[in-house]
Amino acid sequence: MENTKIDFLKTYLSFYIDHNTVLAGQQQPDSDYVILDVRNAPAAIKKDQIKGAIAMPAKDLPQRLGELDATKTYVVYDWTAGTTLGKVALLALLGAGFKAYELSCALEGWKGMHLPIESL
Amino acid sequence: MENTKIDFLKTYLSFYIDHNTVLAGQQQPDSDYVILDVRNAPAAIKKDQIKGAIAMPAKDLPQRLGELDATKTYVVYDWTAGTTLGKVALLALLGAGFKAYELSCALEGWKGMHLPIESL
Amino acid sequence: MENTKIDFLKTYLSFYIDHNTVLAGQQQPDSDYVILDVRNAPAAIKKDQIKGAIAMPAKDLPQRLGELDATKTYVVYDWTAGTTLGKVALLALLGAGFKAYELSCALEGWKGMHLPIESL
Repeated sequence: MENTKIDFLKTYLSFYIDHNTVLAGQQQPDSDYVILDVRNAPAAIKKDQIKGAIAMPAKDLPQRLGELDATKTYVVYDWTAGTTLGKVALLALLGAGFKAYELSCALEGWKGMHLPIESL
Repeated sequence: MENTKIDFLKTYLSFYIDHNTVLAGQQQPDSDYVILDVRNAPAAIKKDQIKGAIAMPAKDLPQRLGELDATKTYVVYDWTAGTTLGKVALLALLGAGFKAYELSCALEGWKGMHLPIESL
Repeated sequence: MENTKIDFLKTYLSFYIDHNTVLAGQQQPDSDYVILDVRNAPAAIKKDQIKGAIAMPAKDLPQRLGELDATKTYVVYDWTAGTTLGKVALLALLGAGFKAYELSCALEGWKGMHLPIESL
């Protein structure tokens, strides 16, 4: 059972990237990271987003894969940790061969740490 | 590893149903969906719930399976996404042969989208 | 598929302990439970914690395993349910042979139930 638990945790954690790694990557001259806001909510409810993110709702992502660049690493986020849209987006992205991670702690954690956001 | 990740995501996502699907189903004349509020908290803390939900705390669910209808599809929710009571409830329901899903984004997401709730 | 889902749920839930179990254990004369606050945020952002918790950020935990007592059961928590630091900490603790669980519903759920906290 312990090996099953360890394997489960390793797989679970392999989906995530933390904000420090994303921020450090973005400060490189030619950053590999592209942040996708995969929330399905209308703009009136979203109000703000992570600075520089591209809005690509999870419900539209499978039809918009042609807009993406296979040399980049995509970082997706939803409202809060533990929701499902990030994983819906990861399934579409990883299934199509893209490099992709879900942002640990989501938008809520990013804002809680006072990291850069922008109004919509 | 990529196949392990894809399989993990598919299994993870198979537990969930989104609010649009539930709302559309509820508008059918003889809806299959029954929403169960599986929060264990006392009513004084709960204050409100999804409109039409049946309160069936996760801690009581194993003893109350006899009240359920095997022809229905149960949709369970807890306070927020990523908590454990929805999965405790799913384990009891699926293990007993019921059709059941956890509501994506939980009560917090439902309220964030301004969907119908009722006071307790 | 149903067996895969049941196994997944059992493994997922095996990582968690609920607050009632922790509180009951703490009232024993020689409690086995030690609560670790594994949030990485600086104290200025953390503001408060679960009463009696030991601050051991997930990023420092692998280097601090020598401070732990193999006869105890560690209960880790992060800000909210569904975040990743609790599972980062569990991977370090379980991988090193310690008994460890993540607190269901995290700090948010503990505070929502008005359980004991202390200022930082």
